[in-house]
Amino acid sequence: MTYELYYWPGLQGRGEFARLVLEDAGAAYVDVGREPGGMKKLLHALEHGLDGVRPFAPPFLRAGKVVIAQSANIARFLGERLGLAPSSVPGDLAAATIALTIADLVTEVHDTHHPTTVELAYEKQKPAAKKRAEAFREERLPKFTGWLEDILKANGNVLVGRSVTYADLCAFQAVVGLEYAFPNAMKKQKVKRLRALRDRVAARPKLAAYLASPRRIPFNETGIFRHYPELDP
Amino acid sequence: MTYELYYWPGLQGRGEFARLVLEDAGAAYVDVGREPGGMKKLLHALEHGLDGVRPFAPPFLRAGKVVIAQSANIARFLGERLGLAPSSVPGDLAAATIALTIADLVTEVHDTHHPTTVELAYEKQKPAAKKRAEAFREERLPKFTGWLEDILKANGNVLVGRSVTYADLCAFQAVVGLEYAFPNAMKKQKVKRLRALRDRVAARPKLAAYLASPRRIPFNETGIFRHYPELDP
Repeated sequence: MTYELYYWPGLQGRGEFARLVLEDAGAAYVDVGREPGGMKKLLHALEHGLDGVRPFAPPFLRAGKVVIAQSANIARFLGERLGLAPSSVPGDLAAATIALTIADLVTEVHDTHHPTTVELAYEKQKPAAKKRAEAFREERLPKFTGWLEDILKANGNVLVGRSVTYADLCAFQAVVGLEYAFPNAMKKQKVKRLRALRDRVAARPKLAAYLASPRRIPFNETGIFRHYPELDP
Repeated sequence: MTYELYYWPGLQGRGEFARLVLEDAGAAYVDVGREPGGMKKLLHALEHGLDGVRPFAPPFLRAGKVVIAQSANIARFLGERLGLAPSSVPGDLAAATIALTIADLVTEVHDTHHPTTVELAYEKQKPAAKKRAEAFREERLPKFTGWLEDILKANGNVLVGRSVTYADLCAFQAVVGLEYAFPNAMKKQKVKRLRALRDRVAARPKLAAYLASPRRIPFNETGIFRHYPELDP
């Protein structure tokens, strides 16, 4: 099966969680928004639905008869089908819980540069962004990264079970994104296990090839993880 | 099996999505945080994990060997096990997509009264809340409720398939919560199908009994859906 991933072109954004699972599994997929004519297809699906399912926003995925949205949900769905999920039901649900909590973290990161509304550019809401980013750096960032660190401390080299799963790929993306957006704040976090997990994921052969390829869009200031020096003093 | 739901006492909050599925299914459950000694158990689980799973925040649920967090995820898990999920895989995944999107809406509602940080009371962030609530009322509320309305328009009396599922229970809770928090803004929304769904869900015998019982905590200003008149002029 060739998966169809629908996401905005030009940014990693929330689409990247799906890309990492697809790439690590070596699955065949089309990144629709980056193909010629793809944006038209994406916008048509948002307006009219796709096979009877109407996504609220990208990313969404078509996999045969399934159309599914929500980044953590897509990562779980692909992980389960592509050998990147825990094999037990309690394990899979624990991985889903972690992936969804990382999606919450991603939303909070987004709101550091869009604290008032997604309808206006960052430049139109800078004073509010400064306050929200400060609260994020001081309270939320240590809480989220410390929580992942504690899970690794209890479980070992990966977040769930004994093998790398989609939850680990999501955690990798969160860590490298946070390191891009908030390098100074991230240096202060005592999360050696989480950094080791980041390195372990990045070294997986298929992912290493992906990360070095042009398919991996560089982080930039149109994505979720944006580096604005004034938000990371 | 007796399910154990862990959530803060005194508010519906994100725990209510699980409660609605449990109540509609007539499942046996303990609302741990509202039992004598329950808060101690809840805090212990947050600090030390529960059966090897460490939730980031309530709500979380224990179901035999499964421990699971994240409100939409819990609703899906319970829906699948208690006869309140679509029977087909594409249908179940469509319902999961809707439930997760409603969870995003709930986060945006939360941030209307906590736009800068969850660490400070609403009263300490009122100017930012006024701006965020305005953007929410003008842009996001019509977008989310219009999206649910469009799904109903395409599908019929329920959001997925032909029977009420956990996605419909989540939508019910979102609508009544929004009507509590933003009565004026909600009056302006043209969502007759969504209001009909709200009434259809509320009239289900087990849910009607629940909603009239003391187990249904009234909406109040410690929950997610809060009515501050200045945020809904």
